[in-house]
Amino acid sequence: MHRIILVNNMKPYLDYASTTPINKEVLKEMEPYLKEEYGNPSSLHELGRKAKRAIDKARKRAAKFLSSDEEEIIFTGSASESNNTAIRGLVKGIKQEKIHIITTQIEHKAVLETCEDIESENIEVTYLPVNKEGLIKIDDLTASIKPETRLISVMYVNNEMGAIQPIKEIGKKIEEINKERKDKIYFHTDAVQAANWLDCNTKELKVDLLTLSSHKIYGPKGVGLLYIKKGTPIKPLITGGAQEWKLRAGTENVSGIVGMGKAIELIQKNTNKKIEFIKSKLIERVLKIPGSQLNTPKQSAPHIANFSFKGVEGEGLLILLDDKGIAVSTGSACTSVSLSPSHVLMAMGSSELEAHSSIRVSLGNQTTEEEIEYFLKILPESLKKLRRISGR
Amino acid sequence: MHRIILVNNMKPYLDYASTTPINKEVLKEMEPYLKEEYGNPSSLHELGRKAKRAIDKARKRAAKFLSSDEEEIIFTGSASESNNTAIRGLVKGIKQEKIHIITTQIEHKAVLETCEDIESENIEVTYLPVNKEGLIKIDDLTASIKPETRLISVMYVNNEMGAIQPIKEIGKKIEEINKERKDKIYFHTDAVQAANWLDCNTKELKVDLLTLSSHKIYGPKGVGLLYIKKGTPIKPLITGGAQEWKLRAGTENVSGIVGMGKAIELIQKNTNKKIEFIKSKLIERVLKIPGSQLNTPKQSAPHIANFSFKGVEGEGLLILLDDKGIAVSTGSACTSVSLSPSHVLMAMGSSELEAHSSIRVSLGNQTTEEEIEYFLKILPESLKKLRRISGR
Repeated sequence: MHRIILVNNMKPYLDYASTTPINKEVLKEMEPYLKEEYGNPSSLHELGRKAKRAIDKARKRAAKFLSSDEEEIIFTGSASESNNTAIRGLVKGIKQEKIHIITTQIEHKAVLETCEDIESENIEVTYLPVNKEGLIKIDDLTASIKPETRLISVMYVNNEMGAIQPIKEIGKKIEEINKERKDKIYFHTDAVQAANWLDCNTKELKVDLLTLSSHKIYGPKGVGLLYIKKGTPIKPLITGGAQEWKLRAGTENVSGIVGMGKAIELIQKNTNKKIEFIKSKLIERVLKIPGSQLNTPKQSAPHIANFSFKGVEGEGLLILLDDKGIAVSTGSACTSVSLSPSHVLMAMGSSELEAHSSIRVSLGNQTTEEEIEYFLKILPESLKKLRRISGR
Repeated sequence: MHRIILVNNMKPYLDYASTTPINKEVLKEMEPYLKEEYGNPSSLHELGRKAKRAIDKARKRAAKFLSSDEEEIIFTGSASESNNTAIRGLVKGIKQEKIHIITTQIEHKAVLETCEDIESENIEVTYLPVNKEGLIKIDDLTASIKPETRLISVMYVNNEMGAIQPIKEIGKKIEEINKERKDKIYFHTDAVQAANWLDCNTKELKVDLLTLSSHKIYGPKGVGLLYIKKGTPIKPLITGGAQEWKLRAGTENVSGIVGMGKAIELIQKNTNKKIEFIKSKLIERVLKIPGSQLNTPKQSAPHIANFSFKGVEGEGLLILLDDKGIAVSTGSACTSVSLSPSHVLMAMGSSELEAHSSIRVSLGNQTTEEEIEYFLKILPESLKKLRRISGR
């Protein structure tokens, strides 16, 4: 009886890759800056200086996490802004008539659409394909490099199906290649989905630019971060103030930055094992359902499992699951409004039908085995219902 | 005795033009979105839809305040971002080989430096001078218009000395001129310092673009707003997501947007009289101090009083006042880090010496007459001390 009540009250949130709740400790550190400590960090008086010290502290925490200097970190309004700054800002900062950029077909839209957008500005972009495992080939990458290549942007963990790219290996390769070149190739990685799980030491990864998001690591929404290696010739996207080393004008989101700083400090890679265990169990059980297929490759972050279900629309499934209190997503939250099939799954070789029939289950620090049990109880019923409707 | 204790505990915050504390009612509305309602507004499940409804509500409130449609409002990360979007986004959206922009010499740096920055991109900019009262002449404005003029950006209330530009009159004039033209001239106003005090009805003002800041109206930091009149050919500054009518990619700062919406709803123009009264008293008393001079013109917003003091460095004065618990600023918070004299006061005809010797006192909804009394007690002592040091 107790069991049934528990299950009925359960609302499994299985969409941590879309966003995470703010950690209580994070919120506690933010609170003074939402209340009495309301100074503008640019103000010279006491209230201003206190706000300034608070963002300095957050920057210090971020620098520690990234093994960087504080001068190499700017806080932005979102990871999308960070990605835009990395690409547009670098293109603007490089005084070169023709610029070539290399990226992948499975990037987040904030990289992909930004690259597409600047193709009109005498910028050439190569979009590297990925294999069935969602991985680019380093040989493809090196073969694509031209004399005018100045930026390579490869995401660390794919947000839709979790594949981990070999960033360290790519970084090392680019470093070698740079030794033989006059004009340096800068290396950017969107590490938004990696931060909770993988090494983000910028020295080890040998990246020049790295993007993080606060709200994917149990921090508040409205804050992103861009690591910019010393000497990278980047120009600001937003001008008109000396904030963030003159690289991002505008009064700082003090409480948000404080929150992101604390969230970064609280990142604990040791939750990997627990989540990996839950995920492997989840995958095993889901694959027993006829017509199910796993899109997430072996080499993937612990929190993402992407499935396709034959004869089922992902969106229909999402709606039925939602009706039972279960939150999952189709593809990424960022593209949920669009009706086109996932560009990531298509790039990995899925058919349009398979891509349309996919959902992403993503786990986080509050995920319990009970939640997964509940999901596994509801999922087959929902699939049956949908297949009855579609007649497939 | 009681009086002295009161004064000793007093910490007059006279820097509301730099930033304002978050209103308690605003924070109360934000709180659920910092806690249990953590959904991503792009997610289709219940938690996501709740977040979406929250930002829809905020947008509705903003639309009401601006007499606009909800489709004409985008939330950004700061007013600086809004100003950058207005200028850079419009320039990008107008497919025209040569573009001319008209602005003023006293704009906020987010407009001024952005205009200066794009001058390298085949954009010509005219910076209109102002008179002693800090006002542009409408005849100057119309005389500056060229066939390739496509944007006029004039701030509503100057942030350093409070002058109010005749936005409605300018809007009407531009509308007339547009009737005779093939290529429309778009009209932008930075209304950041006006919102608490003046009419922001976009229909009345006849503006195409209008910028607001949350943290200047008792809302949280990290949120701005840009009104974009239907049909204005603007392109996003940040690409890669369908948020904000596809004009500003990135997961929305839900709690921040909710806060800004509530702050907008709470704007009460009826505080003007109280603040005007306190300001007039302040000015009267300060001008009795030998060597003092008022830089704020008659036609100014109620909250700003900018003074110069002969033989005194503004920054030194700020530091002494801060030591006594009083928060004021030199020029604006945004430029406090730079050592150059205020571009606004210089444009109004102040000497470099006068500009260097200025402080801005700015009032807000918590300002009391007691705080002003305390300031008026400490100010002359501080001036004496500084003049003794400088020997002037």
